[in-house]
Amino acid sequence: MTASGTPVTSASDMAEPADTVRVPVALGERSYDILIGRGVLGEAGALIARRIPGCRAAIVTDSTVGRHHLETLESSLAEAGIDCSAIVVSPGEGSKNFATFEQVVDAVIAGRFERGDAIVALGGGVVGDLAGFVAGVVRRGMHFVQIPTSLLAQVDSSVGGKTGINVSHGKNLVGVFHQPDLVLADTGVLDTLSERHFRAGYAEVVKYGLINDADFFVWLEENWRDVFAGGPARTHAIATSCRSKAAIVARDERESGERALLNLGHTFGHALEAATGYGDRLVHGEAISIGMVLAHDFSVRMNLASKDDADRVRAHFAGVGLPTTLAEIPGDLPDADGLMTLISQDKKVSRGSLTFILTHGIGKAFIAKDVVPDAVRDFLAEAKAAGART
Amino acid sequence: MTASGTPVTSASDMAEPADTVRVPVALGERSYDILIGRGVLGEAGALIARRIPGCRAAIVTDSTVGRHHLETLESSLAEAGIDCSAIVVSPGEGSKNFATFEQVVDAVIAGRFERGDAIVALGGGVVGDLAGFVAGVVRRGMHFVQIPTSLLAQVDSSVGGKTGINVSHGKNLVGVFHQPDLVLADTGVLDTLSERHFRAGYAEVVKYGLINDADFFVWLEENWRDVFAGGPARTHAIATSCRSKAAIVARDERESGERALLNLGHTFGHALEAATGYGDRLVHGEAISIGMVLAHDFSVRMNLASKDDADRVRAHFAGVGLPTTLAEIPGDLPDADGLMTLISQDKKVSRGSLTFILTHGIGKAFIAKDVVPDAVRDFLAEAKAAGART
Ligand SMILES: NC(=O)c1ccc[n+]([C@@H]2O[C@H](COP(=O)([O-])OP(=O)(O)OC[C@H]3O[C@@H](n4cnc5c(N)ncnc54)[C@H](O)[C@@H]3O)[C@@H](O)[C@H]2O)c1
Ligand SMILES: NC(=O)c1ccc[n+]([C@@H]2O[C@H](COP(=O)([O-])OP(=O)(O)OC[C@H]3O[C@@H](n4cnc5c(N)ncnc54)[C@H](O)[C@@H]3O)[C@@H](O)[C@H]2O)c1
Ligand SMILES: [Zn+2]
Ligand SMILES: [Zn+2]
Repeated sequence: MTASGTPVTSASDMAEPADTVRVPVALGERSYDILIGRGVLGEAGALIARRIPGCRAAIVTDSTVGRHHLETLESSLAEAGIDCSAIVVSPGEGSKNFATFEQVVDAVIAGRFERGDAIVALGGGVVGDLAGFVAGVVRRGMHFVQIPTSLLAQVDSSVGGKTGINVSHGKNLVGVFHQPDLVLADTGVLDTLSERHFRAGYAEVVKYGLINDADFFVWLEENWRDVFAGGPARTHAIATSCRSKAAIVARDERESGERALLNLGHTFGHALEAATGYGDRLVHGEAISIGMVLAHDFSVRMNLASKDDADRVRAHFAGVGLPTTLAEIPGDLPDADGLMTLISQDKKVSRGSLTFILTHGIGKAFIAKDVVPDAVRDFLAEAKAAGART
Repeated sequence: MTASGTPVTSASDMAEPADTVRVPVALGERSYDILIGRGVLGEAGALIARRIPGCRAAIVTDSTVGRHHLETLESSLAEAGIDCSAIVVSPGEGSKNFATFEQVVDAVIAGRFERGDAIVALGGGVVGDLAGFVAGVVRRGMHFVQIPTSLLAQVDSSVGGKTGINVSHGKNLVGVFHQPDLVLADTGVLDTLSERHFRAGYAEVVKYGLINDADFFVWLEENWRDVFAGGPARTHAIATSCRSKAAIVARDERESGERALLNLGHTFGHALEAATGYGDRLVHGEAISIGMVLAHDFSVRMNLASKDDADRVRAHFAGVGLPTTLAEIPGDLPDADGLMTLISQDKKVSRGSLTFILTHGIGKAFIAKDVVPDAVRDFLAEAKAAGART
């Protein structure tokens, strides 16, 4: 693709490399496209220039991602005549805090970026959430481009407009909804991602099959090795995931209903992350791998789903090398009451009653309100005991 | 008014004291009412309970306003069965900073307020801007009630959804658009406001006449003493101002066009505030009083407006005791070049070109793009010299 002269802002006129898949996110005047394919990072400049003519760009990245991919982005922007500067934060969840947020805000303002300019997030979910929040608040909202570089970010955090940081009381409690103008998911940049983080992101891919697309789950059971290897299967898995999330977000942008389905496995998962300190002991995708298995097992226990389905879910996660039991988490865990306390502190608790995403089987997740806390507690006590016995 | 049993959320069903004026702000699904009148603070509990059934309330106030009016609000909330707690910040512009923002966010989250709960801003524009920003970002958006207690806040900052804080590079550069669910302007609480701040807020009232309502300006010329004294004239002036701002905001919520008219006198005014350190030397309303006079004088200079109109504007501001010349600002001011630098740093500068609100006469303000900086510079040099001669 070459950058053509006339700036064209309409998403539908946007040109892209031939083998790129385009997933539109339909949100009225906030609609945008996700472009997925090998090499889109090298086209970022031209694509951004078309979508946001005349903008300057403040790139936010972390030092790890920056080392691998910042130069490619900067040259592409330079080629397209986009003036840019880069703001580099430390890698890891720790950067989603108030201090870093304030630093990035200050750097953007010191760089004299205006409302018509763009914040470009080049990184995983951490960079995307942080940079998106900055884009949402500097001058009460700047343009925002997501260039997700982790699998998790490509299939989940870069789509849907949720941004934010953590506070001492909990994760993602402060932020805004701020939709990007464009999302560029280069499947090739995932080649530099650690296998552990690729696998963790893959848990979110499987989630879309489990929520409402049993066929996709079956396809993943058959093709997951090709997804890990790269190539067209990877692009297909990412595009299917984005399409699935985009459809849910389009129907419920502000999470007043259906969007909660995306939390399948996350109530358990968040409690496990909190229990392990949001660190290397258990990364998010691992936590929700266990969480999704628990959600299926609990649904079986409630006579909602068949044991066969739950076993198949566990087998697939275990097959790709993801943890599926509490026993696999290194170090000590709180007891069932301790986990319940963490669950009730999770933000998905609405006015005191427990809301869970449960399932009638693979591809049949649903929002269950008023789940009885004692049933969850007993279930967790057994899950812990099972771990202790092995 | 007594709190009736059934929660009614529709704005049009809302009951209020008989002599209360209701100004609707039409913003689609974000529409809300402004209720203006003596004593509405005492009805806050019932009114909030109707609008946001079942909510808890985190009150944000400053220590001065809190001393005078917090108890009335707390009893009213208690009567309506609304559980609340108060977060008290220091009075003054200094509280619109990152540190206080973070403290208030933390206090709200520590108080376990959820998305369905409300942040209630009880105070002037400082408290409203700060608390509104907090409401906009905690859990990605909570309910928000404005109880403006300064005249400026009642006629300007509480209406329209702009929230934010200052950073070292400039004022209001960080924030969100977050519309309130309800605005309660008790004209009686203004009795405890200092005369200086009342007068400063009055400058914004006059602004609405100058923008597009010559009749209102004439009415103010005749009735301003009654507005200062309180009573129905005060309510009328506040309601007219709110109606005027609401109409402009409804047509241009995100300030992509017409809303810029509200900046009449503000480009000059902001430069003067920056020059005097945003403090007691010159408060905002005083700065824009001078700014509006300068905008009229400059329009005369550009052959856009008649000298008669400009003189009338100056006479009215001077008559109520507001400053109208650079010479009245205590202490030293930068020279014309220094003021120009401050003007070009103001956020209304778009991509390098100067945008000013100029006027064809009283009630006939318009957005002038590409004003020639040198013309402004020369004009300011003369305005300064005129001051030096007196
Ligand atoms: N906004 C949302 O809707 C949403 C949804 C899900 C998760 N999240 C958030 O996403 C975050 C997790 O995202 P994540 O897993 O991407 O974490 P991350 O951003 O920390 O990335 C994981 C690690 O991989 C590195 N990395 C990323 N891309 C790389 C690449 N191409 N090559 C080499 N290294 C690379 C990073 O430096 C980091 O060390 C969490 O903070 C979570 O809250 C947000
Ligand atoms: N959001 C917007 O659209 C918008 C518009 C205009 C101005 N603003 C902002 O508003 C702020 C200025 O507002 P302000 O003039 O109300 O300042 P303020 O909030 O500092 O109030 C002025 C002073 O009056 C005191 N006070 C307020 N109400 C009182 C009462 N009833 N009795 C006794 N004392 C009282 C306060 O404690 C303070 O000391 C600025 O920060 C400005 O940026 C915002
Ligand atoms: Zn997740
Ligand atoms: Zn003003």
